[in-house]
Amino acid sequence: MTDNTKIAEGYASAWMARDLDAAMAYVAEDVVLDAPAGRFEGAAAYRAFLERFLDLMTAAEITAVYGGEDGAAVHYVTRTRPVPVSLGSDRLVIRDGLIREVVTVFDRLPFRDAKDAAATNAAARD
Amino acid sequence: MTDNTKIAEGYASAWMARDLDAAMAYVAEDVVLDAPAGRFEGAAAYRAFLERFLDLMTAAEITAVYGGEDGAAVHYVTRTRPVPVSLGSDRLVIRDGLIREVVTVFDRLPFRDAKDAAATNAAARD
Repeated sequence: MTDNTKIAEGYASAWMARDLDAAMAYVAEDVVLDAPAGRFEGAAAYRAFLERFLDLMTAAEITAVYGGEDGAAVHYVTRTRPVPVSLGSDRLVIRDGLIREVVTVFDRLPFRDAKDAAATNAAARD
Repeated sequence: MTDNTKIAEGYASAWMARDLDAAMAYVAEDVVLDAPAGRFEGAAAYRAFLERFLDLMTAAEITAVYGGEDGAAVHYVTRTRPVPVSLGSDRLVIRDGLIREVVTVFDRLPFRDAKDAAATNAAARD
């Protein structure tokens, strides 16, 4: 296991355990996140992004962590209130032991479909 | 660079270059693909999946490859006719030099939005 693999695993395990203080200890102050919804700059914006996701998440599990010289990739499965099972992957760019960039890939379509279905149900109840 | 990293990079470079014969040489006959749209079993189904994607794709680039003992992860950017820029990640489970499982993560929402917009435009032209 490379150092970058260890950092990625420690980081992902921490947010999955809802321990954002522990997760953010792996993250640089000037971190940049590229997520499907857009770009988030700085540790405060990044932490707020994670908090919003944890509000939805009911469980998560790492499926694979692979590391290289400049970073690591984490693949995972999450369970959320709107979408029962969702796969994701984070690419983490790591320098001097800190996560500098995060590129998050996941499929937003089931979340959109769940939102549309909830709106339809709400309209039907009116 | 580990052997698995080399396999992942060779495989991804091949499909990005539209050389499906070269890409499929890395893939086991009984490969299983878990994609956002569902599960595809066997090399023939997998190749057909890649062919359909290449019909849409205009360009692609590897952004990172990380390897480990049981496989590798590839992160990439694709350009397609419906969606200008799209990020994806493949987790590749590799045994005895062949790709046995592929877990593909990408965001289908921009593709749905492009399809809806095209339908709206077509309706407006009628």
